[in-house]
Amino acid sequence: MITTDLGKRLQTLRKDKAGLSQEKFALKIGMDRTYYASVEAGRRNISIINIKKIADGLGVSLSELFEGM
Amino acid sequence: MITTDLGKRLQTLRKDKAGLSQEKFALKIGMDRTYYASVEAGRRNISIINIKKIADGLGVSLSELFEGM
Repeated sequence: MITTDLGKRLQTLRKDKAGLSQEKFALKIGMDRTYYASVEAGRRNISIINIKKIADGLGVSLSELFEGM
Repeated sequence: MITTDLGKRLQTLRKDKAGLSQEKFALKIGMDRTYYASVEAGRRNISIINIKKIADGLGVSLSELFEGM
């Protein structure tokens, strides 16, 4: 499932690139922390505007965000 | 705006990779043609499940879909 794959990828990138907890990362990008947690858990059909917000917070391009998926 | 950039990128990929009209491509991937047209026009905050459906129809990875954006 694409939402699950994306959630796992975001978790990896958050730890590697941002080095922040879910809560601190969500705060940094101005996203509700419970919403962000559910994205990483693969439970949200997240939209492109929010994916872009996350990519910007991680400092990666969208192409890099989806690399290997 | 990310939705505009994505729409332009999809239009390029649809012509280059699929070689189909908007209508025929939408039919191929089982997406409403007016919805698909509005995505290419940058008027939709499209979700990851629908982006994946388009990528699969184009025969490209998500990383390739977002290349250069």
